[in-house]
Amino acid sequence: MSKANNPKLKSWVEVPNGSDFPIQNLPFGIFKTQYLTAVAGVAIGNHVLDLVYLYEKGFFDGLGLPPGIFNQEYLNPFIGLGRKKCGEVRERISELLRIDNDELQDNVAARELALIPMEEVEMRMPIQIPNYTDFYSSEEHATNVGTMFRDPKNALLPNWKHLPVGYHGRTSSIVISGTPIHRPKGQIKPLDSEVPVFSPCKKLDFELEMAFITCANTALGSSVSTKEAEDNIFGMVLFNDWSARDMQTWEYVPLGPFLAKNFASTISPWIVTMDALEPFRVDGPKQNPKVLPYLTYEGKKNYDIGLEVIIGEGKNETVVSKSNFKYMYWNMCQQLAHHTVNGCNLQVGDMYGSGTISGPEKGSFGSMLEITWNGKDPIKLKDGSERKFIEDGDMVTLRGAAERDGVRIGFGDCSGKILPAI
Amino acid sequence: MSKANNPKLKSWVEVPNGSDFPIQNLPFGIFKTQYLTAVAGVAIGNHVLDLVYLYEKGFFDGLGLPPGIFNQEYLNPFIGLGRKKCGEVRERISELLRIDNDELQDNVAARELALIPMEEVEMRMPIQIPNYTDFYSSEEHATNVGTMFRDPKNALLPNWKHLPVGYHGRTSSIVISGTPIHRPKGQIKPLDSEVPVFSPCKKLDFELEMAFITCANTALGSSVSTKEAEDNIFGMVLFNDWSARDMQTWEYVPLGPFLAKNFASTISPWIVTMDALEPFRVDGPKQNPKVLPYLTYEGKKNYDIGLEVIIGEGKNETVVSKSNFKYMYWNMCQQLAHHTVNGCNLQVGDMYGSGTISGPEKGSFGSMLEITWNGKDPIKLKDGSERKFIEDGDMVTLRGAAERDGVRIGFGDCSGKILPAI
Repeated sequence: MSKANNPKLKSWVEVPNGSDFPIQNLPFGIFKTQYLTAVAGVAIGNHVLDLVYLYEKGFFDGLGLPPGIFNQEYLNPFIGLGRKKCGEVRERISELLRIDNDELQDNVAARELALIPMEEVEMRMPIQIPNYTDFYSSEEHATNVGTMFRDPKNALLPNWKHLPVGYHGRTSSIVISGTPIHRPKGQIKPLDSEVPVFSPCKKLDFELEMAFITCANTALGSSVSTKEAEDNIFGMVLFNDWSARDMQTWEYVPLGPFLAKNFASTISPWIVTMDALEPFRVDGPKQNPKVLPYLTYEGKKNYDIGLEVIIGEGKNETVVSKSNFKYMYWNMCQQLAHHTVNGCNLQVGDMYGSGTISGPEKGSFGSMLEITWNGKDPIKLKDGSERKFIEDGDMVTLRGAAERDGVRIGFGDCSGKILPAI
Repeated sequence: MSKANNPKLKSWVEVPNGSDFPIQNLPFGIFKTQYLTAVAGVAIGNHVLDLVYLYEKGFFDGLGLPPGIFNQEYLNPFIGLGRKKCGEVRERISELLRIDNDELQDNVAARELALIPMEEVEMRMPIQIPNYTDFYSSEEHATNVGTMFRDPKNALLPNWKHLPVGYHGRTSSIVISGTPIHRPKGQIKPLDSEVPVFSPCKKLDFELEMAFITCANTALGSSVSTKEAEDNIFGMVLFNDWSARDMQTWEYVPLGPFLAKNFASTISPWIVTMDALEPFRVDGPKQNPKVLPYLTYEGKKNYDIGLEVIIGEGKNETVVSKSNFKYMYWNMCQQLAHHTVNGCNLQVGDMYGSGTISGPEKGSFGSMLEITWNGKDPIKLKDGSERKFIEDGDMVTLRGAAERDGVRIGFGDCSGKILPAI
């Protein structure tokens, strides 16, 4: 176990009970303040640690970091240093924040400047995303969708258990938590109509996903094995892949979802490192039929991360789903090995979505499509209203955390409010 | 008509007969030499005009260009200045190259340094591509594929004539002409097998496409109308969307093509501006049924650009297809209007592929899949060999040009050689 993951560690920075950001987490993000342009930071309790300031004051001396590495609009140059170097930086930050370390703790002027209260920062997109792929790797989700729209007896298509089905998505419209989203408009084909009509989406949905971010450029033509995959994965975020179900049904044959997805996807602002998630590895579901050799793997490649979807705000928050990342049939190593087996190259900052993460029971489904079974079975919210899909004014929030031994490695809120169509 | 498009214009730079790059073209690219890092240039005859040098010597004074605008690894900052400003730069370059203009012509030292023979330059990717979308907008191609794989009587799916079907592709593997491509490996499912096998692709194909490049960032939530679309389009390239047909058949349900496409796509190095293509506008095919109001348009939105696909090199070049960009059922303005009608935002440098451009006759089909009807009807090459699909060692070249009044607005070669699977 890495020193930084020791559940007994305490920080001299106050970390409130139930905080997503104890000293064992230390996720990276990009923030700005009234006085600072966008720069790199790390979350600790209710504060953001300014990495540019720490670098300039020499707290990272000896790590061989390039000048200006944290003074960037995006984390790409930093994560491009690779898993190992980023891990060293996290270890050093952990050291600086420990209650038994006085380097920063006892330097009152420096700690005042290095630690910024979260309410004074605005979080920005942490990554410039060169490529975004969305997988479809939850068996329960794929089975639910196949049952609803195709054949309940053959809900999974023949390829599903042989390869992690995936498709490319749009990077331009991936936004950070808090960004309001206008209800999309487009073509839908009502059941009673011969031709499509133009309309605001009537079946607006969220998708509860997680996404991982790569930290290496690989050569075109080369492949990454399941064994090598983890060296290429920096960390994870929560990912809401907003979906317009009525538009999707009409447009998606034969080339897949397009406008039904690319109007917006929302990510949580802090990238939780795979290093921080290390203690939460679990076995994945048994895969049957046996996969082809390039998809075989050894060890625990799933992660036990509890997930929730909430509709509403403040005292009207209603938890509409409780799921877990451990349910994924295909793991991230298999996803990367498959993605690159044909020679497709990776880039630093690529984002790879898991696909909707549904668990086995109704309470663990990761989309309104599944929760209300395409609107047939509406749910009741705390404020007494009913929902078949997402309505204008609804705030949808994803939350997630891995928890064990009193340590909570959380992701922060991944929220978006739906505004009326323009 | 813009002055720079006058078919009577002559340049003091020698332009060989049949050149793709007369003074009426002036396409933009990124080049490097033994002595220069990658910078912006313009093609004229067999030379490249060094725009950094011209800028530094004051030849663009008065145009209000930001310092360093051409001294860039990619054209994104330049084309981000917008259609109008880029057009002014092209007009100025045209002026400088005219036989009746002595500014550069009579400055022997400057013209020697500004004009670099093409054999001394290496062309680089002209654009850093933030997003890549591929459409499927040739009726003949979609009909051929639908006939082969689905139902000859209902070859086009119900949505095809109501919207320009498209899907997102991978940007990391878009490479410049001349980049060799390794045959991809992956899962294919032989007809006589219950389960897939891992294999090098056995049905490797090209797709004859063109792609346009956008020159504006739009706001998430906003839409671009068919009327506004052209302001957002800088220019075009030839685009070979390499395809692994056997992998595609197995993987593509239900979310569309993935590994069958993302191992590589090849573009031609010079971006031909829409300004240069202005004289080649033609009417598109009549659209029936009538499209929804947001897809209606006025004026000539198709372009008469002759296209060829060649297999082989030197004296063994065999033209296997002659097509034309004018065949497109959906035009670029409709494609952009559709893409953004849901609020999806555009970025500077986005690439939008047309989809395979097939004409009505067999000789004008844009893929081996169609030319040999999925391998049933092999073709003979000049060297006496037969092809069902593309073999290792094959060089595939796309060529294209708009021609009228003795003026040829060409794109340069879009070539790639297939190497054996690694």
